[in-house]
Amino acid sequence: MRVHAYAAPGPAEPLVPTVIERRAVGANDVLIAIEYAGICHSDIHTVRGEWGPQPFPVVPGHEIVGVVAEVGADVTKHRVGDRVGVGCMVNSCGECANCRNGDEQYCVNGTVFTYASPDRDGTSTQGGYSTHVVVDAGFVLSVPQGLDPAAAAPLLCAGITTYAPLRRWGAGPGRQVAVVGLGGLGHMAVKLAHAMGAHVTVLSQSLKKREDGLRLGADDYYATADPDTFTQLADRFDLIINTVSADLDINAYLGLLTVDGTMVNVGVAPGPMSVHGFLLGSRRNLTGSMIGGVALTQEMLDFCAQHGIGSEIEIISADRINDAYERVLASDVRYRFVIDAATIA
Amino acid sequence: MRVHAYAAPGPAEPLVPTVIERRAVGANDVLIAIEYAGICHSDIHTVRGEWGPQPFPVVPGHEIVGVVAEVGADVTKHRVGDRVGVGCMVNSCGECANCRNGDEQYCVNGTVFTYASPDRDGTSTQGGYSTHVVVDAGFVLSVPQGLDPAAAAPLLCAGITTYAPLRRWGAGPGRQVAVVGLGGLGHMAVKLAHAMGAHVTVLSQSLKKREDGLRLGADDYYATADPDTFTQLADRFDLIINTVSADLDINAYLGLLTVDGTMVNVGVAPGPMSVHGFLLGSRRNLTGSMIGGVALTQEMLDFCAQHGIGSEIEIISADRINDAYERVLASDVRYRFVIDAATIA
Repeated sequence: MRVHAYAAPGPAEPLVPTVIERRAVGANDVLIAIEYAGICHSDIHTVRGEWGPQPFPVVPGHEIVGVVAEVGADVTKHRVGDRVGVGCMVNSCGECANCRNGDEQYCVNGTVFTYASPDRDGTSTQGGYSTHVVVDAGFVLSVPQGLDPAAAAPLLCAGITTYAPLRRWGAGPGRQVAVVGLGGLGHMAVKLAHAMGAHVTVLSQSLKKREDGLRLGADDYYATADPDTFTQLADRFDLIINTVSADLDINAYLGLLTVDGTMVNVGVAPGPMSVHGFLLGSRRNLTGSMIGGVALTQEMLDFCAQHGIGSEIEIISADRINDAYERVLASDVRYRFVIDAATIA
Repeated sequence: MRVHAYAAPGPAEPLVPTVIERRAVGANDVLIAIEYAGICHSDIHTVRGEWGPQPFPVVPGHEIVGVVAEVGADVTKHRVGDRVGVGCMVNSCGECANCRNGDEQYCVNGTVFTYASPDRDGTSTQGGYSTHVVVDAGFVLSVPQGLDPAAAAPLLCAGITTYAPLRRWGAGPGRQVAVVGLGGLGHMAVKLAHAMGAHVTVLSQSLKKREDGLRLGADDYYATADPDTFTQLADRFDLIINTVSADLDINAYLGLLTVDGTMVNVGVAPGPMSVHGFLLGSRRNLTGSMIGGVALTQEMLDFCAQHGIGSEIEIISADRINDAYERVLASDVRYRFVIDAATIA
């Protein structure tokens, strides 16, 4: 099956319209007519070759929402006409300890990611900047009624990436949660932590987006460019979700944690972190988290539907993808671009 | 009350016999006739000025076991003749969130440590290399019958320092625990983790102490000088207790953790750690832990009595303290020196 898509032909080239092959719908497969695909910062890193060589041409996109167009003979979970989503993964072994534990993203035999990843049949996966995609039913999420489909697309990556650590480290009533960075990930972290009942503080370079932050659910908002912030908030937070992938002074943030507090990096900075051991001495934890498993992603979608949470988005036509990339790099987006797949041709 | 003790007159001087003043027994105080005091590596760091300027003369010693000689009017928990212990702390505010949570060692108003620490009355505390000590009853532990008093002394620091993280991060049946370094702390970690039912692996520079390690309760023993160790044990451990205070390649050890695995430093290396963020991405935790609260220390002593656990010790007379320091620095002790307080005069 040949479908329209936008692909990066190489690491130094803009994305262009193209036609790609999708596999025939197998017994366990779902064919999805894509409605929306979010633009994630990692799409840009990948197609620009910043994360190593890629199997070009690459069709990015792992924040996919659409409607089921066809299902394989053995698929019972999804039906034609259902609204569904696909996130960062499309397969895993299902048998290793991590898969059995619901952590398909850490499959020891190799998670199949949604694009630029070796698929079981030897081809490379191609992502959601496309009109259709064929995905194993086990990796197709149900998008609950009541969620706006365009605003739901970024939940499949930005949503689960922040929901997973908030749940894992117990965000909830009586807990002090800080979110470092108010971008695509950060704004989701604020909405989700607020909905979980935590006290939410945004730590952003400046106070530029303060009003937005408070509107999205933050209780407090501090500028990290102001050194007073770090003395004022010392020993304050049970949980810090760090959404900034740039090199930060990690020690300054560790000093903001309570005893047993946890700082979770949901991005990875380019360089190694320099960590002072004595800051960890009061059982402060430094850790990381990468997206989340299939079941947890479904739980997150259901939670978002229940709490009326979507991403803050700007819908664009496919011919504006390259411009959108530049604006993402300039942090000129509030807070996620979503491609209208009807404009892909 | 004037009592005999051994003190460091200054940072570059050997310890010498001296006489110090102990306060009168207050209403909440316990006077302890000291039987044994363990020698901890931190005694050496402190008296040599490696941890900053100290209020010399300093009497070290925070692994104290003795017999109650007198109690204040309001003391009900201890009676004359009871065998008791004192660890690294002798007071805290009792009112801050950490104290109320049983973490007196993280008292936000300032834990009073057992020696070289500002006491409530403005004097500096003086430690256990002494014949007697007066301590607030709330910081005096009961040493259960059945524990050898000399072998129990190191439990008050080395024991609780390793027991606390083993309990906090769930060492027990079905859990893979690694202990980095087989010294004073490490040998306690092995005994305790084994008694908790965990599968215990020692990671030591060489295989020199392998037989000891297995005898103490280790199931496996690997040399970290052999790079194969790190490929062979990749993704293996739920918990790594790092007892080595020297600079280590932390990333090599992080790679040995499972998803959700935790590496706990119970010492602090002199330099900052260089940590690769991607190693934390599968929810691996890097953290630290410092001794443990009063209630947990009592739990540890009771656990040790129940499981017949003491430290492996070499009892010395007080005139050998300076030699013992040199042997500790040369790692020539299996595994803890304990001073016979009857020889202090």
